[in-house]
Amino acid sequence: MTLDEKLGQLVGFWIDQGDEVVAPLAGEMKTSTRFEDAVVHGIGHFTRVYGTRPVDPIARAEWLWNEQRRLQRETRLGIPALVHEECLTGLAAWQAATFPTPLAWGAAFDPDLVAEMGRLIGGSMRELGIHQGLAPVLDVIRDPRWGRVDECIAEDPYVVGTIGTAYVRGLQDAGVHATLKHFVGYSGSRAGRNHAPVHAGPREIADVFLPPFEMAVRDGGVRAVMNSYAEIDGVPVAASREYLTELLRDRWGFDGVVVADYFAVAFLHTMHQIAADPGEAAQLALEAGIDVELPTLDAYPALAERVRAGLLDEAVIDRAVTRVLTQKEDLGLLDADFDSPPRRIDLDSPAHRRVARRLAEEGTVLLTNDGMLPLGRDTRRIAVLGPNADSAEALMGCYSFANHVLAHHPGTAMGFEIPTVLEALRGALPDARITQEAGCDVEGDDRSRIAAAVELAAASDVAVVVVGDRAGLFGRGTVGEGNDVESLDLPGVQRELVEAVVATGTPTVMVLLTGRPYAIAWAVEGEHAPAAVVQSFFPGEEGGTALAAILTGAVNPSGRLPVSLPRAAGAQPYTYLHPHLGGPSEVTSAANAPVLPFGHGLGYTAFHHEDLTVDASVAAGAVFTAKVTVRNAGDRTGTDVVQLYAHDVAASVTRPQAQLLAYQRVTLEPGDAAVVSFEVPTQRLAFSGRDLTRIVEPGRVDLWAGTSVVDRETTASIEITGEVHPVGASDPRIATARVRPAPAPTDGVTASMPAAVS
Amino acid sequence: MTLDEKLGQLVGFWIDQGDEVVAPLAGEMKTSTRFEDAVVHGIGHFTRVYGTRPVDPIARAEWLWNEQRRLQRETRLGIPALVHEECLTGLAAWQAATFPTPLAWGAAFDPDLVAEMGRLIGGSMRELGIHQGLAPVLDVIRDPRWGRVDECIAEDPYVVGTIGTAYVRGLQDAGVHATLKHFVGYSGSRAGRNHAPVHAGPREIADVFLPPFEMAVRDGGVRAVMNSYAEIDGVPVAASREYLTELLRDRWGFDGVVVADYFAVAFLHTMHQIAADPGEAAQLALEAGIDVELPTLDAYPALAERVRAGLLDEAVIDRAVTRVLTQKEDLGLLDADFDSPPRRIDLDSPAHRRVARRLAEEGTVLLTNDGMLPLGRDTRRIAVLGPNADSAEALMGCYSFANHVLAHHPGTAMGFEIPTVLEALRGALPDARITQEAGCDVEGDDRSRIAAAVELAAASDVAVVVVGDRAGLFGRGTVGEGNDVESLDLPGVQRELVEAVVATGTPTVMVLLTGRPYAIAWAVEGEHAPAAVVQSFFPGEEGGTALAAILTGAVNPSGRLPVSLPRAAGAQPYTYLHPHLGGPSEVTSAANAPVLPFGHGLGYTAFHHEDLTVDASVAAGAVFTAKVTVRNAGDRTGTDVVQLYAHDVAASVTRPQAQLLAYQRVTLEPGDAAVVSFEVPTQRLAFSGRDLTRIVEPGRVDLWAGTSVVDRETTASIEITGEVHPVGASDPRIATARVRPAPAPTDGVTASMPAAVS
Repeated sequence: MTLDEKLGQLVGFWIDQGDEVVAPLAGEMKTSTRFEDAVVHGIGHFTRVYGTRPVDPIARAEWLWNEQRRLQRETRLGIPALVHEECLTGLAAWQAATFPTPLAWGAAFDPDLVAEMGRLIGGSMRELGIHQGLAPVLDVIRDPRWGRVDECIAEDPYVVGTIGTAYVRGLQDAGVHATLKHFVGYSGSRAGRNHAPVHAGPREIADVFLPPFEMAVRDGGVRAVMNSYAEIDGVPVAASREYLTELLRDRWGFDGVVVADYFAVAFLHTMHQIAADPGEAAQLALEAGIDVELPTLDAYPALAERVRAGLLDEAVIDRAVTRVLTQKEDLGLLDADFDSPPRRIDLDSPAHRRVARRLAEEGTVLLTNDGMLPLGRDTRRIAVLGPNADSAEALMGCYSFANHVLAHHPGTAMGFEIPTVLEALRGALPDARITQEAGCDVEGDDRSRIAAAVELAAASDVAVVVVGDRAGLFGRGTVGEGNDVESLDLPGVQRELVEAVVATGTPTVMVLLTGRPYAIAWAVEGEHAPAAVVQSFFPGEEGGTALAAILTGAVNPSGRLPVSLPRAAGAQPYTYLHPHLGGPSEVTSAANAPVLPFGHGLGYTAFHHEDLTVDASVAAGAVFTAKVTVRNAGDRTGTDVVQLYAHDVAASVTRPQAQLLAYQRVTLEPGDAAVVSFEVPTQRLAFSGRDLTRIVEPGRVDLWAGTSVVDRETTASIEITGEVHPVGASDPRIATARVRPAPAPTDGVTASMPAAVS
Repeated sequence: MTLDEKLGQLVGFWIDQGDEVVAPLAGEMKTSTRFEDAVVHGIGHFTRVYGTRPVDPIARAEWLWNEQRRLQRETRLGIPALVHEECLTGLAAWQAATFPTPLAWGAAFDPDLVAEMGRLIGGSMRELGIHQGLAPVLDVIRDPRWGRVDECIAEDPYVVGTIGTAYVRGLQDAGVHATLKHFVGYSGSRAGRNHAPVHAGPREIADVFLPPFEMAVRDGGVRAVMNSYAEIDGVPVAASREYLTELLRDRWGFDGVVVADYFAVAFLHTMHQIAADPGEAAQLALEAGIDVELPTLDAYPALAERVRAGLLDEAVIDRAVTRVLTQKEDLGLLDADFDSPPRRIDLDSPAHRRVARRLAEEGTVLLTNDGMLPLGRDTRRIAVLGPNADSAEALMGCYSFANHVLAHHPGTAMGFEIPTVLEALRGALPDARITQEAGCDVEGDDRSRIAAAVELAAASDVAVVVVGDRAGLFGRGTVGEGNDVESLDLPGVQRELVEAVVATGTPTVMVLLTGRPYAIAWAVEGEHAPAAVVQSFFPGEEGGTALAAILTGAVNPSGRLPVSLPRAAGAQPYTYLHPHLGGPSEVTSAANAPVLPFGHGLGYTAFHHEDLTVDASVAAGAVFTAKVTVRNAGDRTGTDVVQLYAHDVAASVTRPQAQLLAYQRVTLEPGDAAVVSFEVPTQRLAFSGRDLTRIVEPGRVDLWAGTSVVDRETTASIEITGEVHPVGASDPRIATARVRPAPAPTDGVTASMPAAVS
């Protein structure tokens, strides 16, 4: 291969790149290189062929197959392009299914269902000739002010890792390579500001940010990784050989491809200012381990000059090219034929809709309920209010095709069915008299329509007020990429709307459609709080129907908060994984306790957790069994998420006051109980010791189970014994669970039954 | 020495320790050991003999001399106790002078004056038999939500280092050992919460937090260091051999004594939970390098058992004992006689008051002024309003004796003169008709007296509204130790008071007496902003008179902001030392630009900065000269703080967009100009490179001078040439300045005059 042919394989080309902001500075960064010139020596990637503007998928596939044939025919080496696309909440293409956002996956605590979604997304991509998907996002939530929280799964690394790895498995089962975003640390950006420096030490990086990536690499076998834009303690990850090569490849054994986040190579020069020009930026990135520059050729072409000037060893280029070609070979691209583009395709099949529906149901969290939910069968007059009540866009996240792309093409049809909450409620309650009024917008201070909403509420039996976010990018919308905030109040005058409706005395449920948790103490604890609050994290195309089913009782809610509900923006950053002094403590007057804790979520039945039993001791490095009985003490069938938490009582470094060890969804009939047996590797308690090696340390560990992290319904302790156990590549990272029925308590109440549990 | 005698030297005893909260958990941590038992084998320190409750200094000195004699006589070795005391804003003793808080020192940019203050404080201490002062605080401000910001000097490490080192020199010149607090990282506590984890990497610690300590150790020759309570990335500093020994002693050559912050040893067990019991906590601390447990014996006595059990090598104890005895020898304690306690002492002499007055004047910052200030000679009717207008306590910081101790003893007289702003204005304007009304309290939501204040304002020619903080500890007050906040709005309803007064149309000046910068965009930028805003950081016993002199024009204000004025609590943490992506940037919608920038401050005259000239190049490791002409373009004599800033255009790690390189106060008559020549070691631009060694790197550096960090009135560039220069112990850390008159411009205006400058 010539140097030009090699460099061709190391860059993408963004055919449709326009001025619309679908990536940071996409307009300013627009390349002047023509398509014909870019591909003359072959090209590594085609960028967002389907996902940059609304194109007919079949017509675009026809074009793509043709271009691939042209690459085979008209370039010397005849190597097709790898086609990558966004696919976080479903394939980012016109007419494709839109699933719930990752926060809803986190709330569902259901890796199998997420894997099923991944398989469906991957299937659609494969049919359209797309080889690599830019998902999932494995950034652990550290600050809800960050706009990209709506792309993240949870505040807990283990939940992120298990759910994220399930997504990877699903997508790759379908033959499409997943890409882990954003390796690593991005969500720790200072004050929740996009691209801002990450102020973190190596221990926090290792113990909080890295575990999901390690799980997806080692357990999920992911084939691609994308760098984080941000710097960590002064070093941009895009220039970090330590993370991109020494850790990822040398220690974890990753042998796939590392791609640049869009424009991240050039940003080493323009934004981070650690390179004097684009060529130096390119060399820094390539030497660190970024194999492919995306989205398009900005800086890597300058590498040719640096090789010729003797500044860069061509072997470094060869290493990256070998990886790219190996990936193409793995994908079957090197001997693919492009004779038969698809003639017909259903990107939103009944199977897509079924999974979208179930995930929306499982991912919805009932935060409070004074008993008004589910709505009684005799509910006749319902006022459906709020700016998100009749909005399809409000059901989708920032990386949905609708909010990412269609927002720039007003008038273009959505391309698939997505009933709003209002429409779904009308469908679910055909006999009710449903009235509707937005009352206000999501943003802005227009209060002129609140009175009309209040009037409808006053004349109704119940009011459903649907408020929250509008996802968008870089100043468009209230959450999403580039939409960071300095206040965690509900945007605009929505709180005033809800409070005015509540003040009518009509029983009111507030439904939140948001991409981040908001500071809603007023709605949870306040004297004038709504009778019920439902938190939905952008639930996708079946979100409206799922919410209608939950409100009317057809579905019993089972979601649990994958993030703490914050107290205030001024209390951030906060994480439930804080050591003693990171939470409310004796030495500060500032109260940062969450309004509702991680793991919280109600249903229409009540679950009790009893009889946590655990081995008295376990050797460091071994697996222990923890059993907990969960009982459906209510009168409806329901699903609980059994949560096992731990606290290392004294360790050689500070440790969280609470840490989720394992979780399991369990469905129970009224009165039934089950014993959940968790097989917990002591490695789940591992941390980076004083010398930064990952260890399991002997000592006492307190365990508990309950309805959330703060609810210690049943407790136990275990002693980890023996020598310090260094954690290696072959150590397990996952806890598994078995569920079996538990006999009814002999006395008919929730008595302690150690005999029945064992 | 027996083991008991050794351990006796490694602990303090807090004679007066009561339930009053003058240290974190002081009540809960109260020791049950009796004084007689504690000192039987000798004792290392007497803790806060004068500063725990209001005692008559002469009577207490008599007691102290007696006890010292008793130690000499009745213990086998006859070693007197080292007496330590707080002394941040003056000696913390009844009747002693109270100086301005460190933020005011920072605002004054006047190290010589701070050194003079240190000498006066040290002199008082020495007279009372106190050997060690627990000051200065060298924590670099990183988040204004933290309550202890009122003990800190500035947001810039160089300002902290130069001012803090001056304090050390002053105190030690008087024969009293200074103690650097809090080594290291404390002010980086997450979300500005006291004792919370510091999420920082080693580069940020090295480049931001450590430099002031290094300056005070290497340039200031400080004799004692106190640990930070907080952990850094999982490791409490009290247990960090890396910081307390390897860095401080082995690399920096510190050979003094490291003392524990109060209860910090026990906290390794109870708060950080990295020790299973007090004995393990003690061993961790001692082995890390904490020589003396303060305030009293909690954990170190348990070391005896650990030595006997073979868990601890007695040589580690010997090392600490040797340091303590060496310190006592240096202080002359080992052969002191205690025959003549002082019979009379003036802790608030005219010299104290003169320095307190000058520092209060220099440390006051005029933030805005539409021309209403100084008050005209014809001002007849003045309404003096606000809860801080007639409060002596409001003039003092959290570590003043008044707010630290006297607050627990209501009814006890202050013990020295401290005219309030109201009293001082009455004194300064004997012919004016001055009316007064608080209008509201500092805290709380009582609005009932706002109307009365408004009435007075409406009937006056001008209104002076004095608002802000009340310093206190752990829930008492609005700022100070343990008083962290989640909002940066002015406490209580004070903003409403100011806005109501402004709305009368009477020209209004808002005077802030605070211990932190607040988010006062409404008062700076708003349509209904006061005509002038004056920021005073707790200015001490002469603060009222200093403010009166500034308001009436007797003194021309010259203070400059040592911290950015924040935009919002939700925009924190923020520092002006951010790299490009840490500030407002193209990739986030959140605007965190300060309301007023670091370095800003007005006066009653106008300074222009011109003709920044600099060598074209300088070798890495050498010193370059930067000259800037400053001209008093107004019609009053005034003092400017000439500020030289720099930006490293491209470096191997991310660097701040702006960094203060050097500063110099310059006083000029109207129309006069001066050339300030800064001799700047290139080491001022050093940073921790990729491998964490401290280096000066070749490359272009942009320089500028102006009225604040954002005002580039005159610019230049310099090329650093040659090889990378590793910074060692002998490298200079300080820029020096020479000031000489500049000839008047030939054309009579502020023309460019390169010839005149060289």
